[in-house]
Amino acid sequence: MNSFVIKGDIVFCPYQRQMVAIDDGYIVVRDGVIELPYVELPDSAKDLPVHDFTGKLVMPGMVDLHIHAPQYAFRGLGADMELLDWLTHYAFKEEAKYSDREYAEKAYTMFADALRYSATTRAAVFGTIHRESTVLLMDKLEKNGIVSYVGKVNMDRNSPESLTETTEDSYRETVEFLAEVDGRYRNTYPIVTPRFVPSCTDKLLQKLGWLSEQHDIPVQSHLSENPNEIKWVKELCPESRFYGEVYDSAGLFGSNTNTVMAHCVWSTDDEIALMKERGVFIAHCPASNMNVASGIAPIRRYLTEGLKVGLGSDIAGGQSVSIFTAMVEAMQLSRLYWRHIDSTKKPLSFPEALYMATKGGGRFFGKAGSFERGFEFDAIVIDDSALPHPQELNLRQRAERAVWLGGDQKGLVAKYVRGERLF
Amino acid sequence: MNSFVIKGDIVFCPYQRQMVAIDDGYIVVRDGVIELPYVELPDSAKDLPVHDFTGKLVMPGMVDLHIHAPQYAFRGLGADMELLDWLTHYAFKEEAKYSDREYAEKAYTMFADALRYSATTRAAVFGTIHRESTVLLMDKLEKNGIVSYVGKVNMDRNSPESLTETTEDSYRETVEFLAEVDGRYRNTYPIVTPRFVPSCTDKLLQKLGWLSEQHDIPVQSHLSENPNEIKWVKELCPESRFYGEVYDSAGLFGSNTNTVMAHCVWSTDDEIALMKERGVFIAHCPASNMNVASGIAPIRRYLTEGLKVGLGSDIAGGQSVSIFTAMVEAMQLSRLYWRHIDSTKKPLSFPEALYMATKGGGRFFGKAGSFERGFEFDAIVIDDSALPHPQELNLRQRAERAVWLGGDQKGLVAKYVRGERLF
Repeated sequence: MNSFVIKGDIVFCPYQRQMVAIDDGYIVVRDGVIELPYVELPDSAKDLPVHDFTGKLVMPGMVDLHIHAPQYAFRGLGADMELLDWLTHYAFKEEAKYSDREYAEKAYTMFADALRYSATTRAAVFGTIHRESTVLLMDKLEKNGIVSYVGKVNMDRNSPESLTETTEDSYRETVEFLAEVDGRYRNTYPIVTPRFVPSCTDKLLQKLGWLSEQHDIPVQSHLSENPNEIKWVKELCPESRFYGEVYDSAGLFGSNTNTVMAHCVWSTDDEIALMKERGVFIAHCPASNMNVASGIAPIRRYLTEGLKVGLGSDIAGGQSVSIFTAMVEAMQLSRLYWRHIDSTKKPLSFPEALYMATKGGGRFFGKAGSFERGFEFDAIVIDDSALPHPQELNLRQRAERAVWLGGDQKGLVAKYVRGERLF
Repeated sequence: MNSFVIKGDIVFCPYQRQMVAIDDGYIVVRDGVIELPYVELPDSAKDLPVHDFTGKLVMPGMVDLHIHAPQYAFRGLGADMELLDWLTHYAFKEEAKYSDREYAEKAYTMFADALRYSATTRAAVFGTIHRESTVLLMDKLEKNGIVSYVGKVNMDRNSPESLTETTEDSYRETVEFLAEVDGRYRNTYPIVTPRFVPSCTDKLLQKLGWLSEQHDIPVQSHLSENPNEIKWVKELCPESRFYGEVYDSAGLFGSNTNTVMAHCVWSTDDEIALMKERGVFIAHCPASNMNVASGIAPIRRYLTEGLKVGLGSDIAGGQSVSIFTAMVEAMQLSRLYWRHIDSTKKPLSFPEALYMATKGGGRFFGKAGSFERGFEFDAIVIDDSALPHPQELNLRQRAERAVWLGGDQKGLVAKYVRGERLF
């Protein structure tokens, strides 16, 4: 039974601008679900076993709203091109290898291990077009213990031959993929994954929209990442007023199911308005936005206007699986946005970054990413004693420092997902 | 005797745009100085002991051209203000503590340890105004084995009371500082360190310029970091055409001795021309430029125009002592500069970043930062086998990956400074 009490120095963000910090507090977990965090252990919980992390930081698990599993192999390589060239020269070449089950086995084992030992507890994951490899990826993620949505990618135009499906094949393989994984896992779910408009015909998008609606399967894709990409979409879809409308016309923009769009660096006012209306989640991927020279996304605007924003590593556009790193980069880019682009857009604070990294993205999965009543208990425990300091620090400062200095999850000593302890 | 042969996978940048990679090569070192790197071991070196790092990366040690030792204590904290407020609320408060020898002892021990176990082999270091603590810092750096310039900071105006010296005291303490450390160390040298124009009167700058010239001591300071700071300098020194001219009028801008200026984010054409003319080094500190919202420095322009550029961690404007991290950030910011500010300024390549991190900054110290004939042998050895990958990688790719993924010097297994092995 996953019922227990966690004791430690607790930090979480129930709201965008509110960080709760409880020194030497308790979280009561029953059947994997949070009862409440407490300053003192209530009598009603005195029979439960205590997992004692006194003096250590206990924070919600990190949520990665955008990561490409097959690109993990070349993270940290080839950040010398902007998006479309980068896709052709690096990403597509690597992804073609996943038609080979043996290669996929080797590479996805590394990827699943990396996520297991990271601070990430939930992730929205792109596979490749290959059904067999994508199911293998899901098997591995299920075994590694995190909660994930995983998509077989769809591509039926403007792609290298090795990664181009016919519209019919793409659709049929997706139907079979959904059937194959249906009920197969506890923590791993399928997600409809058109790569992006340039590599999907309208017909394919329509079929995928229909599938998503029929099976109530969420959707992930890319949106308004790079000016050249947006120009290309305009040429391909001259009848659409903006990029996101192409997805929307196919029912792939939150009208039927939960939808997450990566990047949204250059979204127009109309696109932003529609994302808000449809409740589309934005996966902000700051490292990737720098590395492939996309630009700085207007995250302050999205937060102020009430859009749903989480963070993504975007491996291998981003080089690190660490959502701590993404938090730091999101704060840094917001400072450059304020300085160089729009001085009315206040830089992001630490609580805002932590909120995006946890509950902001966690909402895509339901009640995840916070230590509130009724939330599934996903948590990380960090021993920050290895980060030396000569002065006294309070709990808020310790949390901030652990994130700013802990890029690679330094000191991560325990991890819980849905109330189960992974290590 | 520091004569030996290093065997390993060798990578270095003798020129800005040229990376040399020698698989399974040799570097012959005699009395701490490099003879040459070789593809095959020459007969003449067959008697020397071999330090065998087969399969590991051997790169020049990293050079940190700008780091504040007393700010190490609060790295990763308080990145919620821009420069001038940040100085008042964080930096100055922490630096005031270094009047207390006991606190300095504790904090500088942590700082020296951090540098020792980092990839940094040379650094230009700011202390505080306190002579005693600064000498203590130098004792510790000498013991930790890296080569450094260390400055007692000068501040005689516009600073909190606890950090304001009289002009006379500031000068006299500097004279005594120089006398006290003269001949005291093998690897640790003094450097004249006016904090920046806003906290130094013209009179003090003049005296420091004279000291620098008389004793042939190099100079470090800050320049054109932030628009509000520059505006303030204009108010304080209405007769100067640009910020750098204030230093130049005092003989602190490379006319007499080696000079390094941190940041140069907003330098004007005239200032850039004078830096070039005087051979002033620029310490580019990308993390700091993001964290305190200074902006993106035009590094491509500086490189194209032949200015001398190295990298700095700028602890605690930057949060990490890692120059690998600074390399990554420099590449990332150059992409944003290209995208948002000036599309004629091509993003920085990996060799360019590696050059700045090694020989670019190394030139401030003489023959350091490269594996060329006659250079002092500063090197780091990295075991990159812990970074998994399913595909074959060549040496260049391994070096790139080790930097992009190795922020905190993951896998750093050996370090040499001037031919001595530190670990």
